[in-house]
Amino acid sequence: MKNTVKGSFSNFFFEYETPRQVIVKNKRVAVVCRIIQLGVLAYIVGWVFMYEKGYQTVDTAIGSVFTKMKGLSYTNISGVERMWDVADYVFPEQGDSSFVVMTNYISTIQTQGKCPELPDGKNKNKCDSDADCDEGKYKRTGNGHMTGKCVNSTSTCEIYSWCPVEDDRQIPDPPILRAAENYTLFIKNSITFRQFKVIRSNLVEAVNQSYINRCLYNPTNDPLCPIFRLGDIVERSGFNFSEIARVGGAVGILIDWDCNLDRSIKYCKPNYEFYGLYGTGKDDKEEKPSLGYNFRYGKYFVENKVEKRTLMKVFGIRIDIVVHGRAGQFDIIPTLTAIGSGVGIFGVATVLCDLLLLYLLPKRDYYKNMKFKNTES
Amino acid sequence: MKNTVKGSFSNFFFEYETPRQVIVKNKRVAVVCRIIQLGVLAYIVGWVFMYEKGYQTVDTAIGSVFTKMKGLSYTNISGVERMWDVADYVFPEQGDSSFVVMTNYISTIQTQGKCPELPDGKNKNKCDSDADCDEGKYKRTGNGHMTGKCVNSTSTCEIYSWCPVEDDRQIPDPPILRAAENYTLFIKNSITFRQFKVIRSNLVEAVNQSYINRCLYNPTNDPLCPIFRLGDIVERSGFNFSEIARVGGAVGILIDWDCNLDRSIKYCKPNYEFYGLYGTGKDDKEEKPSLGYNFRYGKYFVENKVEKRTLMKVFGIRIDIVVHGRAGQFDIIPTLTAIGSGVGIFGVATVLCDLLLLYLLPKRDYYKNMKFKNTES
Amino acid sequence: MKNTVKGSFSNFFFEYETPRQVIVKNKRVAVVCRIIQLGVLAYIVGWVFMYEKGYQTVDTAIGSVFTKMKGLSYTNISGVERMWDVADYVFPEQGDSSFVVMTNYISTIQTQGKCPELPDGKNKNKCDSDADCDEGKYKRTGNGHMTGKCVNSTSTCEIYSWCPVEDDRQIPDPPILRAAENYTLFIKNSITFRQFKVIRSNLVEAVNQSYINRCLYNPTNDPLCPIFRLGDIVERSGFNFSEIARVGGAVGILIDWDCNLDRSIKYCKPNYEFYGLYGTGKDDKEEKPSLGYNFRYGKYFVENKVEKRTLMKVFGIRIDIVVHGRAGQFDIIPTLTAIGSGVGIFGVATVLCDLLLLYLLPKRDYYKNMKFKNTES
Repeated sequence: MKNTVKGSFSNFFFEYETPRQVIVKNKRVAVVCRIIQLGVLAYIVGWVFMYEKGYQTVDTAIGSVFTKMKGLSYTNISGVERMWDVADYVFPEQGDSSFVVMTNYISTIQTQGKCPELPDGKNKNKCDSDADCDEGKYKRTGNGHMTGKCVNSTSTCEIYSWCPVEDDRQIPDPPILRAAENYTLFIKNSITFRQFKVIRSNLVEAVNQSYINRCLYNPTNDPLCPIFRLGDIVERSGFNFSEIARVGGAVGILIDWDCNLDRSIKYCKPNYEFYGLYGTGKDDKEEKPSLGYNFRYGKYFVENKVEKRTLMKVFGIRIDIVVHGRAGQFDIIPTLTAIGSGVGIFGVATVLCDLLLLYLLPKRDYYKNMKFKNTES
Repeated sequence: MKNTVKGSFSNFFFEYETPRQVIVKNKRVAVVCRIIQLGVLAYIVGWVFMYEKGYQTVDTAIGSVFTKMKGLSYTNISGVERMWDVADYVFPEQGDSSFVVMTNYISTIQTQGKCPELPDGKNKNKCDSDADCDEGKYKRTGNGHMTGKCVNSTSTCEIYSWCPVEDDRQIPDPPILRAAENYTLFIKNSITFRQFKVIRSNLVEAVNQSYINRCLYNPTNDPLCPIFRLGDIVERSGFNFSEIARVGGAVGILIDWDCNLDRSIKYCKPNYEFYGLYGTGKDDKEEKPSLGYNFRYGKYFVENKVEKRTLMKVFGIRIDIVVHGRAGQFDIIPTLTAIGSGVGIFGVATVLCDLLLLYLLPKRDYYKNMKFKNTES
Repeated sequence: MKNTVKGSFSNFFFEYETPRQVIVKNKRVAVVCRIIQLGVLAYIVGWVFMYEKGYQTVDTAIGSVFTKMKGLSYTNISGVERMWDVADYVFPEQGDSSFVVMTNYISTIQTQGKCPELPDGKNKNKCDSDADCDEGKYKRTGNGHMTGKCVNSTSTCEIYSWCPVEDDRQIPDPPILRAAENYTLFIKNSITFRQFKVIRSNLVEAVNQSYINRCLYNPTNDPLCPIFRLGDIVERSGFNFSEIARVGGAVGILIDWDCNLDRSIKYCKPNYEFYGLYGTGKDDKEEKPSLGYNFRYGKYFVENKVEKRTLMKVFGIRIDIVVHGRAGQFDIIPTLTAIGSGVGIFGVATVLCDLLLLYLLPKRDYYKNMKFKNTES
């Protein structure tokens, strides 16, 4: 028994099997076959390796974004002058990657109390008598808690609510802060490819302090400048600024990093792309539900011991900044996997050639005889 | 030399090698072998190709979410009526994908000054004499900067702080804004599959303005309606609404897109899932640390030249909306990789069959003889 | 015809092909060959399977983060005492994964009106006469809308703006809220591996309420404690606390989960990493643009019917918490793909051996003859 094992072992180590092959000296088959094999080889080398970089392992980035708006708006509404700066028009204030720039608003100073509901065009809030106003209930389209009274002057129910009720039936046109078009947005973006221990910032080598002080993003001339004009962002994402400034809208900015770490790190640069979210001015708008972007917030204060608020219905441009980073670097595993898979595909080429040889050629029986040896059954 | 190269080249092009094979006419082996091979084939075609769609290249989505709450709460606390609307109860106000809906609160009007520390049940803040209150220090469990005095009436140290100190020993029960259960949440979600240049919104074809005006999300009847009742969200994620409304809690909403772009884009629809974060009411709570969700914020105002604030300890439902998108589309590379890998697995089948043939069959020596030819050693 | 099909079918099922092979009894070739083959096998088993866990399918996590700061600061500025608590220094207030802790500020109480522009060192805002101040325009470096007057006392244009203009030429040094170093940050993180239906929280088994009450994160002794000292976070990410507290800065916290779900779930634990964003104190700062982190916000109030605001220029530490989760679990598809690809690589080994056998050995012609059979051309 021991000898058998030893024999097997020495056989295993001192012998080596290699397949026996027929060399088919037939030009037609050979040429077709070689072309198929070369095609497979070209595919593996050219496409998988060179174009798709199948020899690289890939990591996606972890990104962090910080933003800062700059710009001023001056308004003069019925003689009341007002200057708007960044603390007045950006929400939230701390420079997040997703924020809103106010371009239009409806402002209402309110206190808690009783007042008539707003009459709307569709008569949903209309009442003829107190009986139409269920005390303690609220209507789906209403703004408060009905007191049970119908107010004659407006023909609507009296409600307990923040009063007076905000009247948003008419959106200011032109937008109050039309000057927002000239605001600028500064984006700072840091990305980390953990697997490769690479950290990059969008303030790459060529972007130094003096360049930042004077540049403005332009896809052809200044593609790396991290300062963007709000009007440009909106136009590039397919919207019309005046329209979106009036009713609001949402814009995505994609910071795209596609880095080949087998080359020098300085070629690893961001690319900025702009796109409209939830339908742009270019789309067909007929059936599009829920255009525009707005939200409400309150600035609370106390006057004569009474809590009041300035309710702002803010229409604005919401900007969502998304970072998409992908870096590739040579690695042995994907390389060998691609090669192994390529050898497998080579096998397919052989199968195809054999089909040709054994089933389509006139001399197929001769070749079959050469290729196969039968055991008796 | 030139001739040799030329000869090799013409040999290479005009000859073609194909392996010589033995055809084993043995039913038992053949059947076993074919079954193994068919199994491998079935696995490759059925599982890799059809079930896992191995012929597709896959892209993950970049998503953007915008939310809007709607709903009113009326409270009457010791005769003080108050109406709460969206500007009062949503944090932050601008419709982010992660936000908090206030359902309960403790409100304290404060100014900077001196006042006694809050006595707590565990006597951590207790003092017997001024010696217990180190001037200028603060206790870990304290709310301010000790002045060095011990206040007799409360037996706690006097502190310099926002005064009076917030008393949060008792959380209002039932929650003050219990009516939050009927608020509705409207979600707008836009996703982009960059590789395929596909943009989709959760307001898909069937969701038009008139549908939105009347629908409410329901997993069986209205699975595409983007309007959700807050109470439903909470219940579906495994919490009990009244409990979570009192102490707060966090809920995740997952918008899941699993799109096959080889089919029509209109089948690419979102799926909404709800889950509790940080433990639900269903879990065993014994050792669960840190249940509930709350935060503090101040509404600042100036009264008689003195800065004051209304400190709100807000208990609420935090909603985190996460978008998870995945789209597949036919692509030649993964297809060929899958085929190549499949051919490799086929090779494993052949190896298995050969083991059977050469080591287990009674006629194994005969087959060995047929398969192998020895060179002299 | 029917018979032919039937014949082919029975042939297919009852016959089985296996390649004919030459057993080369040549120790040198055999040993080289076996070593290559064993190398390939070792690579596949050792590297692909054991090290890279090629038999596992991988899912990335969906994470949710909630944060809570704790700590107090006491300031005494020219005799005015003030206590700062969490509602005063965290932005935004609701416990997001990205937030700012204020460490320094410049505060200005403003109303809308006319006032002279701020003189800056570089004379950009200087004027000699009214002619230098174009009415209705604004300068790029200015803070408002020029009224057309040049103010003698400051030699700058009069502007309509929030007045007085904020003077941020001098950043308070040392930072006003230097005590921020001792604040603590509590992080709650929940992750979901959807494919495996696994939900984990960073409050893992060992982290219970009593441990949380006393622990503080430390990479060696308390690597799982979810409570972090702000000063530690900043120092670990490579910054100097006093410097960053003065001008602001951004820090990333990475919560890294790398889970092997083939083992018990209790080994699936978070790992915390800290890194500086946008350049740390360690980097060369010469050409580094835009260091520091600051933003402005307004606390609005009404006094004597006039709207005022406290404009805060906030310098602070911005913390971005990122969750990176990856879990692997045994799955048949990647296993078979890895095996198939491995068999393909085995084919490469055979090709290498054949090259040796047929082109390099002295007896190559003998082996060629054994391996190949020629058809007539």
